[in-house]
Amino acid sequence: MARIVQKFGGTSVADVDRIKNAARHVKREVDAGNEVVVVVSAMAGTTNQLVGWVRAINPLHATTEYDAVVASGEQVTAGLMALALHDLGVEARSWLGWQIPIHTDDVHGKAAIESIETAKIEHDLAKKRVAVVSGFQGMAPSGRITTLGRGGSDTSAVALAAELKADRCDIFTDVDGIYTTDPRIVAKAQKLDRIAFEEMLEMASQGARVLETRSVAMAMNNRVRLQVLSSFSNAPGTLVTDEDEIVENRVVSGIAYSRDEAKITVERVADRPGVAAALFGPLADNAINVDMIVQNVSADGATTDMTFTVGKADLDRTLQVLEGLRGTVGFKALKPDSGVVKVSVIGAGMRTHAGVAQLMFKTLAERGINIQVISTSEIKVSVLIAADYAELALRALHTAYGLDAAE
Amino acid sequence: MARIVQKFGGTSVADVDRIKNAARHVKREVDAGNEVVVVVSAMAGTTNQLVGWVRAINPLHATTEYDAVVASGEQVTAGLMALALHDLGVEARSWLGWQIPIHTDDVHGKAAIESIETAKIEHDLAKKRVAVVSGFQGMAPSGRITTLGRGGSDTSAVALAAELKADRCDIFTDVDGIYTTDPRIVAKAQKLDRIAFEEMLEMASQGARVLETRSVAMAMNNRVRLQVLSSFSNAPGTLVTDEDEIVENRVVSGIAYSRDEAKITVERVADRPGVAAALFGPLADNAINVDMIVQNVSADGATTDMTFTVGKADLDRTLQVLEGLRGTVGFKALKPDSGVVKVSVIGAGMRTHAGVAQLMFKTLAERGINIQVISTSEIKVSVLIAADYAELALRALHTAYGLDAAE
Repeated sequence: MARIVQKFGGTSVADVDRIKNAARHVKREVDAGNEVVVVVSAMAGTTNQLVGWVRAINPLHATTEYDAVVASGEQVTAGLMALALHDLGVEARSWLGWQIPIHTDDVHGKAAIESIETAKIEHDLAKKRVAVVSGFQGMAPSGRITTLGRGGSDTSAVALAAELKADRCDIFTDVDGIYTTDPRIVAKAQKLDRIAFEEMLEMASQGARVLETRSVAMAMNNRVRLQVLSSFSNAPGTLVTDEDEIVENRVVSGIAYSRDEAKITVERVADRPGVAAALFGPLADNAINVDMIVQNVSADGATTDMTFTVGKADLDRTLQVLEGLRGTVGFKALKPDSGVVKVSVIGAGMRTHAGVAQLMFKTLAERGINIQVISTSEIKVSVLIAADYAELALRALHTAYGLDAAE
Repeated sequence: MARIVQKFGGTSVADVDRIKNAARHVKREVDAGNEVVVVVSAMAGTTNQLVGWVRAINPLHATTEYDAVVASGEQVTAGLMALALHDLGVEARSWLGWQIPIHTDDVHGKAAIESIETAKIEHDLAKKRVAVVSGFQGMAPSGRITTLGRGGSDTSAVALAAELKADRCDIFTDVDGIYTTDPRIVAKAQKLDRIAFEEMLEMASQGARVLETRSVAMAMNNRVRLQVLSSFSNAPGTLVTDEDEIVENRVVSGIAYSRDEAKITVERVADRPGVAAALFGPLADNAINVDMIVQNVSADGATTDMTFTVGKADLDRTLQVLEGLRGTVGFKALKPDSGVVKVSVIGAGMRTHAGVAQLMFKTLAERGINIQVISTSEIKVSVLIAADYAELALRALHTAYGLDAAE
């Protein structure tokens, strides 16, 4: 007997038929003798509709009321899922965040879970009853409903799995697993049977659509084995787990990319100690995340060019902040460029294998693709290239690292 | 300064614009220096959609889960209404049934309110904050969400008004008050400025669309002055109140009708003591409400004809139950007739004025309308007539009792 948390995303519970279909996945685990906790998202589209109403009524809405409105979506699905399980002869009941309770802080709209009282859920499980929990929601110390932010149902599921010491947390979605790269671009992309937590975090650029990053980190920290799988098939998905559970000895697990970054070059900034802090301090103060940073070698010894990337959505604000520093920091020009893409080669095996970065540089060079910025971590090499070359780079790297599926 | 409960029905909060419009009605009372509690229904159509999903997933649904799903509708509106008030600069917060709490029994799907803890609401009012309460819902002793049954938001409003000793409970809807009769049938129908609770209860056949009967009874028992008015105008509506608050000395306040009844005649039933009990006991056991009953004079002294009415929706089931009694009770035939309408003349003034029934019989006779069954109460005379004559009867009676509006 295993204890399993099953989380169904919005597309998996988008209508009556899909809720019934999801219930059959639950029944299969129950029939196998397992203890099951189900976490549900709102029906696809519902949350957007609710958020739309909130914004239409009051663009500067109080987040307390936003939460009261938006949390209703998961409440509906939890009740409907319990009913669908009853219809299959499976004992079940729905639980709202405040009923369990799932205690959060009071940061309405993006609350963090502080603790979960598991007694009532444990009681259900002991009675062989499926506990169906509304995802995405909890209760603030004030007794008001909180939501965990978009994608928060994954967090609910992982937090419950951790607290209940579940053997596995299944994340049902509309794709059948994590791929070596985006299969819409690389036809030979393969579904991975397993991937390490750390790799999954780095794969976020593709994985964000599938698995919320915060919940992967929480799973890693709490050693919750995740499975990403499709609710529209009965095939096994991708298991996200500890590195040592992964027996295959792949060096590179996947190639990720992100079109969400923009590059900024600050030209001819004074080359003196403290200039980086003077530039990046104000950006941090404005909650702008800087990703890749390169400081070019200073030729004349007096000025240098500083290149870095920020999220595309932050580009205008970044330029504004930097313009305000022109007088104090001193630089000649700001050159923004949003026509870039970040391509990353990811693999936990890099820790023990040399030459991974070298293969990347060589492969791109052979295709005439110019590398603008490089950054590396223990298990990742990322390069910034012109956006036009994204598909070419992905396919070439996918082949070079031996990830292509057999014909 | 007055304390006012304002309840907005589904059509008054059907979309974003209407919620904003309703909020302006609230602001007007706040600006006048009044303490205001707002009770909201679900946006029109929402409850039907939620109920539709429940039934599609599980026709034999658990009422506990039905409640968890359906109560979400009023949760959404409460949050949106609070936001609309903020947008107008009015301090407000939403309250869900379980947050107040509104304690109910555990009859899920049609729970009865047992008590309301008013401390938190009183605290809001003391802080000059509008308390926006989700109607139609409460919390069972188990801690699960309950709903009060369809139309239950009226009950929520009246119960809160009673518990908070409100000076008035305004029921905002899509009609501008209670009329002397159905204005769709009688063009000269007039809006009543005031109507007594007892009269309103009897007007239920027209009033049911406007005001839930159970909530009128609760208002009467708790001396809560109700006002029925339109959220789409600023005109005063109809005040439903104690008889002694009504100064005009009308004998008849209105003419009501109901097309929801069916007539059954049990022919040649043995005319002996206990036969009525033998017929109607089993109907009561099957939760079938019998309204008008007439036992015809027995000519031969051995058998009689028994005529009565039941709700049209119960007709088939009634016939089934009666057929089962043919052997034990003994009768010749069952004659159902659903082509009937009940027309009622209603007025608290009947208590002190004779001749009201006589005028009714005379008016109908002059039009050649045959009366099939008669029943009377202290403030009402009802007759059952062929459905084809409904409009003719209503117009004739409206004129005869001097209710027609001036040209």
